[in-house]
Amino acid sequence: MTVEEAPRHRSGGRAGRQAARLNRAVERLPFLTRTLAPFEVLDEEGLSLIEHNADTILEEVGLEFRGDDVAIALLKDAGADVDGVRVRFPRGMCRQLIQATAPREFTQYARNAANSVQIGGNATVFAPNYGSPFVRDLDNGRRYGTIEDFRNFVKLAYMSPHLHHSGGTVCEPVDVPVNKRHLDMVYSHIRYSDKPFMGSVTHPDRARDTVEMARLTFGEEFVDRNAVVISLINANSPLVWDGTMLGALRAYAEANQATILTPFILAGAMAPVTAAAVCAQTLAESMGGMTLAQLVRPGAPVVLGSFASSMSMQSGAPTFGTPEPALVLYAMAALARRLGVPFRSGGSLCASKVADAQAAYESAATLQPTVLGGVNFVLHAAGWLEGGLACGYEKFVMDADQCGMMAVFVRGMDLSDNGQALDAIRENGPGQHFLGTAHTLANFETAFYRSEIADNNSYEQWQEDGSLDAAQRANKVWKRMLASYEAPALDPAVDEALSDFIARRKASFPDSDV
Amino acid sequence: MTVEEAPRHRSGGRAGRQAARLNRAVERLPFLTRTLAPFEVLDEEGLSLIEHNADTILEEVGLEFRGDDVAIALLKDAGADVDGVRVRFPRGMCRQLIQATAPREFTQYARNAANSVQIGGNATVFAPNYGSPFVRDLDNGRRYGTIEDFRNFVKLAYMSPHLHHSGGTVCEPVDVPVNKRHLDMVYSHIRYSDKPFMGSVTHPDRARDTVEMARLTFGEEFVDRNAVVISLINANSPLVWDGTMLGALRAYAEANQATILTPFILAGAMAPVTAAAVCAQTLAESMGGMTLAQLVRPGAPVVLGSFASSMSMQSGAPTFGTPEPALVLYAMAALARRLGVPFRSGGSLCASKVADAQAAYESAATLQPTVLGGVNFVLHAAGWLEGGLACGYEKFVMDADQCGMMAVFVRGMDLSDNGQALDAIRENGPGQHFLGTAHTLANFETAFYRSEIADNNSYEQWQEDGSLDAAQRANKVWKRMLASYEAPALDPAVDEALSDFIARRKASFPDSDV
Repeated sequence: MTVEEAPRHRSGGRAGRQAARLNRAVERLPFLTRTLAPFEVLDEEGLSLIEHNADTILEEVGLEFRGDDVAIALLKDAGADVDGVRVRFPRGMCRQLIQATAPREFTQYARNAANSVQIGGNATVFAPNYGSPFVRDLDNGRRYGTIEDFRNFVKLAYMSPHLHHSGGTVCEPVDVPVNKRHLDMVYSHIRYSDKPFMGSVTHPDRARDTVEMARLTFGEEFVDRNAVVISLINANSPLVWDGTMLGALRAYAEANQATILTPFILAGAMAPVTAAAVCAQTLAESMGGMTLAQLVRPGAPVVLGSFASSMSMQSGAPTFGTPEPALVLYAMAALARRLGVPFRSGGSLCASKVADAQAAYESAATLQPTVLGGVNFVLHAAGWLEGGLACGYEKFVMDADQCGMMAVFVRGMDLSDNGQALDAIRENGPGQHFLGTAHTLANFETAFYRSEIADNNSYEQWQEDGSLDAAQRANKVWKRMLASYEAPALDPAVDEALSDFIARRKASFPDSDV
Repeated sequence: MTVEEAPRHRSGGRAGRQAARLNRAVERLPFLTRTLAPFEVLDEEGLSLIEHNADTILEEVGLEFRGDDVAIALLKDAGADVDGVRVRFPRGMCRQLIQATAPREFTQYARNAANSVQIGGNATVFAPNYGSPFVRDLDNGRRYGTIEDFRNFVKLAYMSPHLHHSGGTVCEPVDVPVNKRHLDMVYSHIRYSDKPFMGSVTHPDRARDTVEMARLTFGEEFVDRNAVVISLINANSPLVWDGTMLGALRAYAEANQATILTPFILAGAMAPVTAAAVCAQTLAESMGGMTLAQLVRPGAPVVLGSFASSMSMQSGAPTFGTPEPALVLYAMAALARRLGVPFRSGGSLCASKVADAQAAYESAATLQPTVLGGVNFVLHAAGWLEGGLACGYEKFVMDADQCGMMAVFVRGMDLSDNGQALDAIRENGPGQHFLGTAHTLANFETAFYRSEIADNNSYEQWQEDGSLDAAQRANKVWKRMLASYEAPALDPAVDEALSDFIARRKASFPDSDV
């Protein structure tokens, strides 16, 4: 566990301390670095076709940018064809503007520099569940999330060596008024973790509050030059960006902070049912949003996002872990690489209500494409249940364990002399087991990923241990983690400044549940 | 469900009927055909290095061929360096002999031609669990398998549209004497299914019994010209082939039947702990076995097999779903392609004792590499629990459901005009959902894979339905399947010949449990 050193009082000032933090030597790897080429489901011709179709959509149908005159004016000035809120883009315009200024990859800084993450290229960053109104654990079942649950998930993500990011709305803290909870959420990420975090997007003012709190933490100048917040800007598919999201997008882009432009597409509802159509529409919508971000502030970090699910014929509900969204994910990852921007998709998605075999099959069938496709920023990597309606405590630590396996996988095969172990085979000869050989003894400790959740004991030992299933074992894991949680150090001056800001803001307008 | 037509009595003779069966038009797809290039974890240099190391092992250390003078003589005549049971192969000898005569791919014929499978190339064949002494279901827990359980799994594999093969020892029928159970097992595959099946390998005589029963079913000449049985020949790693397996291998090769030459490697015990060493040793051992098969009968179908697992530090037990065996699988698949032989590995492997989240995560983390790596013959695709000690009824139908998803995935993305759906997007426009559009209605039925196991209803509906987990729903699925089972037609003359043969053989030697 990376723990920040005790704060030195005022020595060198806040900027000096920040620089010291940011330059600290990295011990734990703060994100995955893939050495393997991504899996591809479309060839050059197929990818070009999708790109052509996205441009056709942008040119012929266009996107609506609703409730944001500033956005409309910026797009018009840049050469788009504006008709009310409908904006049509000449073929190639979006791609050209994005490629001119959007960074191919960027660093999102954490307040502990050892936890700063690279977003884009060969990096993969795992962030926890986002947006669930409910939480679930084996003891208390399903219930509305609270700020205490929120803090618990922040603490679990902080403590997990397999999660790289604190996420955003890890669950909705419904015991806090809607119009003030963003302050408590952002504070929790800063106070209870020192991993990077996400900002509020439910109102442009809340985005500005997030940026202000980031400035109090990292310093104003540092924030203006570096991404310290990344935020999820969802399209209102099909082909609509609405005013709230556009306002939040502009607030973050103006502050040079990162945004993830994500069409959320339940195929058959927000787009046609077919994968190739979902891809073209996703690309068109996301490019429209990224284009606006570059017009607001050229160079502001943007991420191409894709969230696509299939649909149940029976219930009309989104389904997960099915083959169709996996195909979309692989194709979109390739399209993002061609465009030259980081890519967000995937996670440990499932429709199951509980942390059972359905949950695990579906989550694995999403996480594998996520990693093999080369997703750069992985929201919902841990905790997601019920199509996102609930965040599960047991599911959270189970998923994190799977993320840990992925970190080993993406390093690929060790082809060093030690990895080849030819001498060990030569010395051992036919019929002699390798359990006690020098090579085995030298490598055994680090040879295999060790799961915290799996039971690999004999059947008899498993019975003696109570015949527990994976969820029951996971229940013990998260409780043990929370019981041993220790907060990372936080400069008291920063803590005070944040608390003052929050108190002032909370007092300045009445509670509201919208 | 493919059901064979009612047998026509003696019209055209058995050969004529067989020909008619074999030429029947295929309706259901009898195996997966991948359209996507396999995922690769090693480049040309890495793969050449492993091949070089395999040849070094074969040349310097050699393999032991124990208890089989015929095998030793064949290898010596072919140019190997023989010292007692130790056989060393000049660099390149095995590869050259295999590539000279072993088929790149072949058809394994089923008695219902619609169920014949292609083994090799871009085909992937899913076969059920193999070799478990125990069975498990939710009602009766874990217990020794019986011939009734055996028949049940044969029936479930027959009825599943997602499994292509009847497998072999789907569970051990421990209520039948060890030295006679192969007769009941082979008969069950022929009688209760019409998918292709596997033969006995526990004694050369039992292999010959299998071939004899195949001849009674398919006709002697047909069997001599075509593979109708495929059998699992396991190495006794490290670097040993033992007499029982060699005898069975020779029996099948002499009869032109297919064999899968599979080193079973628990890394750290039967090979060094490192993946590159496991790959080189696996390749060396399997090539040694394939070489012998080609010397016994040039052109006899052989499959390169790899079964590699990691190991628990705590218990020394094999572990599954971990990243290291996945890397081995991907590399071995590439090595088999380069050698030019079909490849067997993977499945739905897990260490979990029950069909819980651990079982599902681990199985999915094995099945994804199995499919993305391009495995041709997938044993243990359904049912496997406890590192193979038990075959689970619920796990069986859950895994089969996952195999069904893979069949959709490997087809890749539909880029037809209908798949692109540009007109649907043009006509719909921004902000209008696609639920009732003509394109959605025309495609909805076939747009998404429909799981038989997953619950995709609302939380409230799920509660009303009893808050069942996936295993509880699967329990209902396999019971419903068995309740509606109808045996495929079998020519009464064949059935009688088989029964006569079995009765004669059983009467000819006393029961034994070895």
